[in-house]
Amino acid sequence: MTNDTNNNDGNPHRNGCAWVEGEFVPIGEAKISLLDAGFTRSDVTYDVVAVWNGKFFRIDDHLDRFGRSLERLRLTPDLDREAMAAILHGCVGRSGLDNAYVEMVVTRGHSRPGGRDPWNFDNHFYAYAIPYVWIVDVGAQLKGSHLVIARDTVRIPEDSVDPTVKNFHWGDLTRGAFEARERGGTVSALPDQHGNLTEGPGFNVFTVVGDELRTPDRGVLHGITRRTVLELAQDQGLRTTVAPLPVADVALADEVFLTSTAGGVMPVTMVDGMTLGDGNPGGVTMALRQAYWDAHDDPRWATEVRFKP
Amino acid sequence: MTNDTNNNDGNPHRNGCAWVEGEFVPIGEAKISLLDAGFTRSDVTYDVVAVWNGKFFRIDDHLDRFGRSLERLRLTPDLDREAMAAILHGCVGRSGLDNAYVEMVVTRGHSRPGGRDPWNFDNHFYAYAIPYVWIVDVGAQLKGSHLVIARDTVRIPEDSVDPTVKNFHWGDLTRGAFEARERGGTVSALPDQHGNLTEGPGFNVFTVVGDELRTPDRGVLHGITRRTVLELAQDQGLRTTVAPLPVADVALADEVFLTSTAGGVMPVTMVDGMTLGDGNPGGVTMALRQAYWDAHDDPRWATEVRFKP
Repeated sequence: MTNDTNNNDGNPHRNGCAWVEGEFVPIGEAKISLLDAGFTRSDVTYDVVAVWNGKFFRIDDHLDRFGRSLERLRLTPDLDREAMAAILHGCVGRSGLDNAYVEMVVTRGHSRPGGRDPWNFDNHFYAYAIPYVWIVDVGAQLKGSHLVIARDTVRIPEDSVDPTVKNFHWGDLTRGAFEARERGGTVSALPDQHGNLTEGPGFNVFTVVGDELRTPDRGVLHGITRRTVLELAQDQGLRTTVAPLPVADVALADEVFLTSTAGGVMPVTMVDGMTLGDGNPGGVTMALRQAYWDAHDDPRWATEVRFKP
Repeated sequence: MTNDTNNNDGNPHRNGCAWVEGEFVPIGEAKISLLDAGFTRSDVTYDVVAVWNGKFFRIDDHLDRFGRSLERLRLTPDLDREAMAAILHGCVGRSGLDNAYVEMVVTRGHSRPGGRDPWNFDNHFYAYAIPYVWIVDVGAQLKGSHLVIARDTVRIPEDSVDPTVKNFHWGDLTRGAFEARERGGTVSALPDQHGNLTEGPGFNVFTVVGDELRTPDRGVLHGITRRTVLELAQDQGLRTTVAPLPVADVALADEVFLTSTAGGVMPVTMVDGMTLGDGNPGGVTMALRQAYWDAHDDPRWATEVRFKP
């Protein structure tokens, strides 16, 4: 998909560049301690921003959300927002990637002597840029995915882990992925405990019925791609409803699609074994998909990568 | 508490020894990739076995449980049980620690080219031995802990993540720890969605009423220390009940204690601000605590560390 290796020979960061313990390192050396509570307790939050054609997409919105996530988890890294942004620019610039998946992470880190309580830890910031990640690759997107909604697993509820704080608690999503595979699906999503749809591993889900777009309000990450689609849909004169979405309604929709920073707007053409419409990606979906990629040049949302090595 | 640094000068593993990518390394070099799905999806299981006075405690039971956890998550490391056991012995022996906290971990690892689905990953085994960890240090144990049961957070339910597969999904437990701190507690535990007690960060909970021990049956790890206490209690003529334990009953118990490989049998003397009995660790609790530590020399359960550098 990308031409990222052009003119990038001899660059030690060509496969990706990370910021680890105060230094830029090649992605292969991007490591954290086995004792970091970000690993041993999954006590961590993160965010992912895309770079497309040399420009960050909505980086301010991602940094805003990341800041809120840090506050909620009471994580206090030693770097402020500007310093974090500079590191993201530095990772992308050094990698030479035009299209990149850029992740920022703060872990609870290591306990200070004499304590194992989370308020006695030194928190750590990590970041990296790697080639753009596609949850569904472009060829498969144009064919359309088969979405299976799990029956044996429900999404971790909000009164256990807050899904609006981007987190690595994916045990339920991974279980759902195995179930989906057994049932012939190519992508999976989870219901909540009340029979409403939530989200899948790394993406939100939308239905289209007539001129109405619907996506779940609760139990999900408030994805930036989800928000972008809601905004673009209004530009296109579509109605948007953010409200509970019963699982039983999904397979009855005219169209279904997934949204993620890692893949954009991804058409679904089959749900739980039932074909949607004529089995091809839907018109509303494809128009939103086009608008989404066009928006990556929109000066409201695009930020040139500052760092050039 | 330990004399672990005796005769251990100059040993690069004196602070702990880890097995990482086929090598024994000092604990400070024990790292995993930021891209390992064990981190990025908390797609991982682990187990912890103690070494006390140079002997593993119930290592076969820990390896059995670890094997079951691997099966449930469909993790298939390249090493069999015997090889894993040999590595654990190797970590402890190299560290020179007489009393150690010994962890084994298998992560989902890295995806093979062309996939992000969990069945297309190469799984990785890690292990390490570090000085014995006390969830509650011995001085605080003899005084007794103040257990606060969270009101704002419930344990991740079984239909999302299986608590009998030891996992790092601790976001709910960490939230509970912050709440407990604000309410004056020194340790915390979580209820389930039905108002029954589950567990705390790294430990099971027991109540004692008369000659009856009670501990929750569901929504909890089946701890090896929990099992040991149930077995020792029967030797002492106590009745044992493994059944739902309503949160409201905990503060009304005669005695309460916590169990963990990282600390043993730990008395609780206050629950949600209410003092239990006369405010001192209870007699049943202290007798079980003594029996627990005595059992570390019992030939049924003790296994001499094989590797001596």
